[in-house]
Amino acid sequence: MEQVMELRQLENRARLLVKCPDKPGIVSVVSSFLFKHNANIVESSQYSSDPENGTFFIRIEFHCDGLSNKSSQLENEFEEIAREYTMDYYFHYLHKRQRSAIFCSKELHCLLELLWEWQNGDLDTDIALVISNHENARPIVESYGIPFYYLPANKEIRKEVEQKQIQLMEEYNVDLLILARYMQILTPQFVDHFENRIINIHHSFLPAFIGANPYERAHIRGVKLIGATSHYVTNDLDEGPIIEQDVERVDHRDDVVTLKKIGRQIERRVLSKAVKWHLENRIIVEGNKTIVFH
Amino acid sequence: MEQVMELRQLENRARLLVKCPDKPGIVSVVSSFLFKHNANIVESSQYSSDPENGTFFIRIEFHCDGLSNKSSQLENEFEEIAREYTMDYYFHYLHKRQRSAIFCSKELHCLLELLWEWQNGDLDTDIALVISNHENARPIVESYGIPFYYLPANKEIRKEVEQKQIQLMEEYNVDLLILARYMQILTPQFVDHFENRIINIHHSFLPAFIGANPYERAHIRGVKLIGATSHYVTNDLDEGPIIEQDVERVDHRDDVVTLKKIGRQIERRVLSKAVKWHLENRIIVEGNKTIVFH
Amino acid sequence: MEQVMELRQLENRARLLVKCPDKPGIVSVVSSFLFKHNANIVESSQYSSDPENGTFFIRIEFHCDGLSNKSSQLENEFEEIAREYTMDYYFHYLHKRQRSAIFCSKELHCLLELLWEWQNGDLDTDIALVISNHENARPIVESYGIPFYYLPANKEIRKEVEQKQIQLMEEYNVDLLILARYMQILTPQFVDHFENRIINIHHSFLPAFIGANPYERAHIRGVKLIGATSHYVTNDLDEGPIIEQDVERVDHRDDVVTLKKIGRQIERRVLSKAVKWHLENRIIVEGNKTIVFH
Amino acid sequence: MEQVMELRQLENRARLLVKCPDKPGIVSVVSSFLFKHNANIVESSQYSSDPENGTFFIRIEFHCDGLSNKSSQLENEFEEIAREYTMDYYFHYLHKRQRSAIFCSKELHCLLELLWEWQNGDLDTDIALVISNHENARPIVESYGIPFYYLPANKEIRKEVEQKQIQLMEEYNVDLLILARYMQILTPQFVDHFENRIINIHHSFLPAFIGANPYERAHIRGVKLIGATSHYVTNDLDEGPIIEQDVERVDHRDDVVTLKKIGRQIERRVLSKAVKWHLENRIIVEGNKTIVFH
Repeated sequence: MEQVMELRQLENRARLLVKCPDKPGIVSVVSSFLFKHNANIVESSQYSSDPENGTFFIRIEFHCDGLSNKSSQLENEFEEIAREYTMDYYFHYLHKRQRSAIFCSKELHCLLELLWEWQNGDLDTDIALVISNHENARPIVESYGIPFYYLPANKEIRKEVEQKQIQLMEEYNVDLLILARYMQILTPQFVDHFENRIINIHHSFLPAFIGANPYERAHIRGVKLIGATSHYVTNDLDEGPIIEQDVERVDHRDDVVTLKKIGRQIERRVLSKAVKWHLENRIIVEGNKTIVFH
Repeated sequence: MEQVMELRQLENRARLLVKCPDKPGIVSVVSSFLFKHNANIVESSQYSSDPENGTFFIRIEFHCDGLSNKSSQLENEFEEIAREYTMDYYFHYLHKRQRSAIFCSKELHCLLELLWEWQNGDLDTDIALVISNHENARPIVESYGIPFYYLPANKEIRKEVEQKQIQLMEEYNVDLLILARYMQILTPQFVDHFENRIINIHHSFLPAFIGANPYERAHIRGVKLIGATSHYVTNDLDEGPIIEQDVERVDHRDDVVTLKKIGRQIERRVLSKAVKWHLENRIIVEGNKTIVFH
Repeated sequence: MEQVMELRQLENRARLLVKCPDKPGIVSVVSSFLFKHNANIVESSQYSSDPENGTFFIRIEFHCDGLSNKSSQLENEFEEIAREYTMDYYFHYLHKRQRSAIFCSKELHCLLELLWEWQNGDLDTDIALVISNHENARPIVESYGIPFYYLPANKEIRKEVEQKQIQLMEEYNVDLLILARYMQILTPQFVDHFENRIINIHHSFLPAFIGANPYERAHIRGVKLIGATSHYVTNDLDEGPIIEQDVERVDHRDDVVTLKKIGRQIERRVLSKAVKWHLENRIIVEGNKTIVFH
Repeated sequence: MEQVMELRQLENRARLLVKCPDKPGIVSVVSSFLFKHNANIVESSQYSSDPENGTFFIRIEFHCDGLSNKSSQLENEFEEIAREYTMDYYFHYLHKRQRSAIFCSKELHCLLELLWEWQNGDLDTDIALVISNHENARPIVESYGIPFYYLPANKEIRKEVEQKQIQLMEEYNVDLLILARYMQILTPQFVDHFENRIINIHHSFLPAFIGANPYERAHIRGVKLIGATSHYVTNDLDEGPIIEQDVERVDHRDDVVTLKKIGRQIERRVLSKAVKWHLENRIIVEGNKTIVFH
């Protein structure tokens, strides 16, 4: 019964994300538009990079009875406003669950965290498939009824593997790709295919320790905090828009093995937060930075 | 020159805080009202306790050319909307700096932090006067050109002292009273005089260790974190609406003296944050809780 | 090969924990004793509640070739020193893995975290069995090859259930009992059976919100941080020696459901840290407090 | 009276820091040596980089009646042990207060924090003098009775200025030099003069944002946490051994001015912790890293 109620609610819920040059009247025109269509604003957050000549961003979650029948009319009429205010905008309907793919390698802590959150109902996505260049995740993934694909990976066969990966992602209608400690580099062609839709977890507090072996380098440098960074993947290694970061305290007694253990705890919570925010449409990418509406 | 610009800007800036029963159209009507009066929304945050039959809260900061000449008209016209939507509301004009009084006792770390923030231009208030039941703060306070009043305090003379305190606060036109480790209890009459305008710092993570000697009691209990809590003062000791809290890690080696030292660092940053948010009109008190629009 | 090496190393490793009245010479006599027996100190931490007439605590981890053949002689000879200095002491040999039982109820996040840590080799214990008053943990527990027992629990049958639990714990030779969100109260008889060997996770920042429904009460009080506390169980509800605490920031938008979600993250990391430290013999209980040698 | 007691206590207190190749028996020989001389160990911390062929470090604080008359004999006799175990070692007598110089530039928050800690009795040092390339700190410094020297600084006159600085530091018998946001680069000659005795605060989470304008660069990169790092100064800019680091959360709304404000809070607490630990002889520099015995 509760589930039925919830489904009906989801059918009448949507999120509107807007980005446009800032000028007076935007909130007024958007909120009046929604009011006119009997949509009730449930949550709203906004940000202007500069009230004078800056860029304006707004995220509105609204409820609207009979939304599924009205959505195309809504979008059509909104198009006029969008044109007038030179808006980039996007309607996301909550009943259309986003579909995610997870790529992983040998270390499974981030994958396990995502599966755990998902099983608890805390990740609003369908995990469509898991792809790994190792076999060790298969039993746990398949125990959840999620398709698992083993695709060996190395420099020589990168192109063919990526072709196969893209094909699978299309076949499974994937909206979001999560790199849960996937230890392979992606080619520009692959990345361009999924712009702002690939979330990676890097095991350092970026921009410190870009690239390989960050814990080893953190140990050599003698830092007193280690961190992890979740970001959208671009073609500059570890340089994409940062979504979330966190750190933990370490000290001189912690060797590299211990740093990695502590780091795993940071990585899994940082990645799962970033994924959750993406799925809730809380993130707008602007240049090489993110606006995250908490 | 920059200062002049800034003053002119302040003259055209205001904040509108609204609280009313939630129903569709509030954002639309408020933002359209502002747009009609050529006011540009600079920052806006909102919260609904429940979109269905809950309470709606919004804080809008706006810029409006010629605001000083238009403010009374603005308020008059807004009154109509307010009546229709049963709004509690409040316009704060940024050129009207709020005036603060600070009460302290022997320990001066919170007072010093506030003076330091204020001197840096990070506290948007005039510190009108400082009152203490000890003389030791006088030199530092007077070195800033701030009037200092020594009023001895104890149970027997509480009434007369409070009478004198109220008189001084009225004489100095005080909007906000900050208890910066003022170690005297205030009577209900005094508190009622300044509802939701007295901010206290309690030296524990409330509701743990309500009342006297929290660090001693934290030590006895063997907690692994100690904290501080900033809250509005009500007539229930340490039970008022919490504005901000923070903690620091401690361990078995920390005696009470050390806990107090660590605690002082927490107290001063928690109090100064709470004061800053109050001065920026970021806090709405609702029942015994606060909504803080960061 | 590596595993073999490791086993051989464990066979030659032990920890010595000592508590005695502080007076000069303790470190000297203990370290000289170990040196005389060709034991090399690998890690050592100490604490004195007061160098004059206080209590002294030391934890030493040492390596000693051929330890298994020498341990009884070592203990016999140490007894003399212990008598002279009125020591409470304890030798723990690392090749004797401690055996743990986990009790849980319906919510499994703490259990899952412990299983995950254990599977990663990060919990130095054998999980001997899991007992729950719900059936939902059975599949996951049994998939790890760990015996699972369903024992229904309520006030009326508490005595019989506890009898059965004690019987199982004895049958499985359990050293440590972990209450991983086990939502039943234990009788004094049960608790006395396992003094300083039952670790509980309480879902609040103790001593705030002792007892039932801490998240609900945190929500009503409007705190800005929520926490969790791991402690040894005594016969005073939620009043036992605190091992570890942590907190996370929350705000006015977080309803009770959200507090619980955030809280689950705190609970699982706080409990697993406490358990790890216990298994590493890092904790000494003194009165109602803990000394934790990190 | 209390002060007298305290002075007498200080006269009988010392700290012994030792670094040597690890091998069995070090703790035994050192603690037996102290016991033989009627010294009571008050606090002791140790660390071994590797029990087999690593380096061993120990910090012992001890109390010894009549220490001032016995110290040279103590040191003489210890020399034998030191030779046998190839120890680097250092006795620090607590009644010999270390003398500090503070260098600052225009921004005074770190200076003020140090003065405040010092005035509270929380920094165990004599602040011998303050040198700045700006005049603005003079009134506050002189109000504490501390000599203030204005020495203009720029690339062209660096050598002469450093000559003058060194001369002042020698004249005032300075043990420790604190760079409290001193915005000038020091020459290798100057740095070599004070090896491991210059503590700097860098306004970023090193190794991220080495060099100039870290807050500007943090803003451009869009990090979600900003930090500060206290380290010993070496001839590699911002590459010296890290003593302490901390971070605070920021978001997309924080412009560079706000980052700097938040950063000032981190900088002052990180620097004052590092200075305190140095003064308590808690830090041992090993290669380009620090061992900090908390």
